[in-house]
Amino acid sequence: MKFKLGCALQYKIVDETLFIFNVEVAQLGRHIDLVDNLVCKPDVELLRYVAPGNHNRYVRALAEPGEFTLSYTAEVDLEVHRADPATVQEMNVRDLPLDILPYLLPSRFVPSDRLADYAYREFGRLPRGHARVSAICSWIYQNIDYKRGSSDSETTATEILIQRAGVCRDFAHLGIAFCRALGIPARLVSCYAFGLDPNDFHAVFEAYLDGRWWLFDGTRQASLDGLVRIGVGRDAAEIAFSTPFGNMEPGPIRIWIDRSDGQPEPQPRTTDAISTDTPVLVAA
Amino acid sequence: MKFKLGCALQYKIVDETLFIFNVEVAQLGRHIDLVDNLVCKPDVELLRYVAPGNHNRYVRALAEPGEFTLSYTAEVDLEVHRADPATVQEMNVRDLPLDILPYLLPSRFVPSDRLADYAYREFGRLPRGHARVSAICSWIYQNIDYKRGSSDSETTATEILIQRAGVCRDFAHLGIAFCRALGIPARLVSCYAFGLDPNDFHAVFEAYLDGRWWLFDGTRQASLDGLVRIGVGRDAAEIAFSTPFGNMEPGPIRIWIDRSDGQPEPQPRTTDAISTDTPVLVAA
Amino acid sequence: MKFKLGCALQYKIVDETLFIFNVEVAQLGRHIDLVDNLVCKPDVELLRYVAPGNHNRYVRALAEPGEFTLSYTAEVDLEVHRADPATVQEMNVRDLPLDILPYLLPSRFVPSDRLADYAYREFGRLPRGHARVSAICSWIYQNIDYKRGSSDSETTATEILIQRAGVCRDFAHLGIAFCRALGIPARLVSCYAFGLDPNDFHAVFEAYLDGRWWLFDGTRQASLDGLVRIGVGRDAAEIAFSTPFGNMEPGPIRIWIDRSDGQPEPQPRTTDAISTDTPVLVAA
Amino acid sequence: MKFKLGCALQYKIVDETLFIFNVEVAQLGRHIDLVDNLVCKPDVELLRYVAPGNHNRYVRALAEPGEFTLSYTAEVDLEVHRADPATVQEMNVRDLPLDILPYLLPSRFVPSDRLADYAYREFGRLPRGHARVSAICSWIYQNIDYKRGSSDSETTATEILIQRAGVCRDFAHLGIAFCRALGIPARLVSCYAFGLDPNDFHAVFEAYLDGRWWLFDGTRQASLDGLVRIGVGRDAAEIAFSTPFGNMEPGPIRIWIDRSDGQPEPQPRTTDAISTDTPVLVAA
Repeated sequence: MKFKLGCALQYKIVDETLFIFNVEVAQLGRHIDLVDNLVCKPDVELLRYVAPGNHNRYVRALAEPGEFTLSYTAEVDLEVHRADPATVQEMNVRDLPLDILPYLLPSRFVPSDRLADYAYREFGRLPRGHARVSAICSWIYQNIDYKRGSSDSETTATEILIQRAGVCRDFAHLGIAFCRALGIPARLVSCYAFGLDPNDFHAVFEAYLDGRWWLFDGTRQASLDGLVRIGVGRDAAEIAFSTPFGNMEPGPIRIWIDRSDGQPEPQPRTTDAISTDTPVLVAA
Repeated sequence: MKFKLGCALQYKIVDETLFIFNVEVAQLGRHIDLVDNLVCKPDVELLRYVAPGNHNRYVRALAEPGEFTLSYTAEVDLEVHRADPATVQEMNVRDLPLDILPYLLPSRFVPSDRLADYAYREFGRLPRGHARVSAICSWIYQNIDYKRGSSDSETTATEILIQRAGVCRDFAHLGIAFCRALGIPARLVSCYAFGLDPNDFHAVFEAYLDGRWWLFDGTRQASLDGLVRIGVGRDAAEIAFSTPFGNMEPGPIRIWIDRSDGQPEPQPRTTDAISTDTPVLVAA
Repeated sequence: MKFKLGCALQYKIVDETLFIFNVEVAQLGRHIDLVDNLVCKPDVELLRYVAPGNHNRYVRALAEPGEFTLSYTAEVDLEVHRADPATVQEMNVRDLPLDILPYLLPSRFVPSDRLADYAYREFGRLPRGHARVSAICSWIYQNIDYKRGSSDSETTATEILIQRAGVCRDFAHLGIAFCRALGIPARLVSCYAFGLDPNDFHAVFEAYLDGRWWLFDGTRQASLDGLVRIGVGRDAAEIAFSTPFGNMEPGPIRIWIDRSDGQPEPQPRTTDAISTDTPVLVAA
Repeated sequence: MKFKLGCALQYKIVDETLFIFNVEVAQLGRHIDLVDNLVCKPDVELLRYVAPGNHNRYVRALAEPGEFTLSYTAEVDLEVHRADPATVQEMNVRDLPLDILPYLLPSRFVPSDRLADYAYREFGRLPRGHARVSAICSWIYQNIDYKRGSSDSETTATEILIQRAGVCRDFAHLGIAFCRALGIPARLVSCYAFGLDPNDFHAVFEAYLDGRWWLFDGTRQASLDGLVRIGVGRDAAEIAFSTPFGNMEPGPIRIWIDRSDGQPEPQPRTTDAISTDTPVLVAA
């Protein structure tokens, strides 16, 4: 599926401010024919960095007092890997590649170490595999309200469980927490989401099953095969779209994504097994 | 039902220590023919106080360095009020006596203000009345593990919800939290519990329905009609059996309760509607 | 000092809503010649209740859908008791009246049980007495920022210690927490505060010293001898000015207090020892 | 300084258990002539992995029911880099290598995002550089009690700030939290610590200053130039010495480290600027 997408960020800089942006589409094998362009105004020097572990693309910019804007546009042909969910198995911890193990650990917003009993009680006796993670998503969808303003930048997955309301990053954090508590590696994914209304940076999660990362979204707000990936991380602490160091005021944000392949009909939302990350070989 | 009961507490006093004890059976109308005796060794002066709101009996003692013991024995004929649970209705907040309203408020170990959505999702659509509070107890019994050592003196009801394990005071705190979140006044009760094995000070909770306090116990470890009340409070902060101010080391505790009416067979555990507190008249 | 004061509350009632208001000036011996008037529109029936323990005056009103307003005006001559702070001693717990002991317990927003070491490290070695509680206020004033919007209705004293910012109720909760952790009974006071700018319901705290409750305010925003008391409680859970049960939208609030004795000059802010609560006799 | 060191771990395996161990001395340039040997009994297959980012050495072993032990011994000549603390400058965020930036982010046990105001109030106005991080260590040493049993595996740096007591990992987490809140990258280091009494796996922290990681220890229990590194991570979630997946019971642990260079006198504890990590070049 071909997409045109982009974002526009505005800031009013009070004192010199260093920004680290992560808004560019990731350079993955399944992001075919990616062409993109990132422009800042004023035209400051941009320092680029691609994280070796997760391929996130970071741009560092130093903004002087005054108006500062970032504009990003991209075109990409997203190829997804589909499978019959019934064939996607969970792995034993002993068979996980060692570089996947960090995604079993608790992190700032995902204190999965506190949820071992909770996760086992709700999901421990379900058949293992893709369907179990889908059951986690359904549980979240049915038990947590999507409510703007119900959480803030400090809210953890356990707090979401208590207050039973959150936004997309909270839904994803909770899904990750249950997965890790069950011994399934999981991580946060930021993306441009086709069909999301109103559009915004979206957050979903990936679970590692059968030697591959699979996409899941407890919010059910966008199709899994319409998610164009920006970054991945253990939780929201790692994949902010903008990390400013300095005194500035953020202005309005605009995000968009449209199909560019003459097939304007939106895809139906899907519960298929969908993977867009490059498969990782399992250690022998 | 007639009971003989008592407790024996031991302390090694390092520096002069003030104790406030709350171990005596409450002087309620339904505690018929109560005869009891509290002795401390050494034989220090005891200052007594009965709290006007809740009838808790406090004893204050000042212990000098050395061994210090408290021995308490009582005999009492416990008369319980029984009703058909189906007839015990919830009250509207507008009809609650104003002196009952404090039992709707959040307290140290019962942050019920954070659980409004949680309680509504789990229990909000159940038929109102005694059966709804019984449903809360069943939910707790099925979802929380009784596990010694899983909580400590700082553990709150929301932490119990996350870790899914606790002891009797935690089970009661959680029941109170859900009740308050649903607009049902609720409070903690400490008691001697016939049939509890091993015996210990027990904690259950009361909910205010139909103009009366009714007993509930999510642990299902003792019969509701075998609970001889010591104290009531908003939560465990208010009804410690012993509050020491000073440097001392607590020793072993012994608690016992037996039937004294020649009917030694234990009563079966019950889910009847049982009330032992004096009824309170509803304000006109 | 004579004051005229009042408040005006507005609500848009969506579904029938029960209110419990606590906005009336307390009927204390030192609130001389109190004359006041509370009117609701529409003119619904008002049920009144004075709590026996703390003299708080509650008004219960049932509001139908539509506009609903409460208007309150009062005149009062506030007599304060002053003392030389150096003469106001702390009491040993053994000498405290037993009905004062609940104010040593942790409560919803004041988990003083967690702060024993913190309080001892900061204030444990200071000379005991009124000056030690003043030192707590100075510490709060110097270490916590007064910042609107930095806390919400769920914020506890320990969270204030971490985030180092709060509003008047948070400053008071923290003062109460340190006092209780040191063995000094303390409680929250809501009041009309002469000189507060902009005016609002104010929250300060009282500590129990030398057989009497003394006023303290870590915000230093109003004179202690210009505080006309509404209610007292263990913490903010107990003295909300308005507790609604039902679906409604709160509108703007107006609060005012002026001198009415022809002596318009504001009093300077004071660090004197000031008490306005009726003295309580110490148990022999 | 030359050391002989090692550890012995014992487990009673109930059901087949997968272990991931991180007890081997890191293969750093400053760990000269490292010779070591790790043996498990029974002699199961060991899968080895060195994390590319931080050089931690992981060993994976699958243990069958019964007794299971790990024995590790090593000899190493530790070369430390020393500098005059006054010459070790803090860096501006804009000058940090991008692969260092993750160590500015909050993590499971280090919610540094909540401590921005706290850190600024205590340390924000101190001269920037090595001495500022030393001031953080001194503050921790003076304000936190080293108390075994005061924390558990779920305790965070903010909880340590409230309870004012912890063990070595808590001291390090708090130092890391203050550093990150001030914009200084920081991470946890596990090590064999010469002179620690009683010996145990020790945890200290590193701050990134002047293009290099420098060692700090708020416990002051061991000399900085006698720390032989095992692993580094964002916090304790990442560098457990043993991560078991399965049902087993840990037995006693033995750790030792001695000088092997004929210079048995212990080194005095030091507050010098000490670095043992390989320097990282600053991006142009």
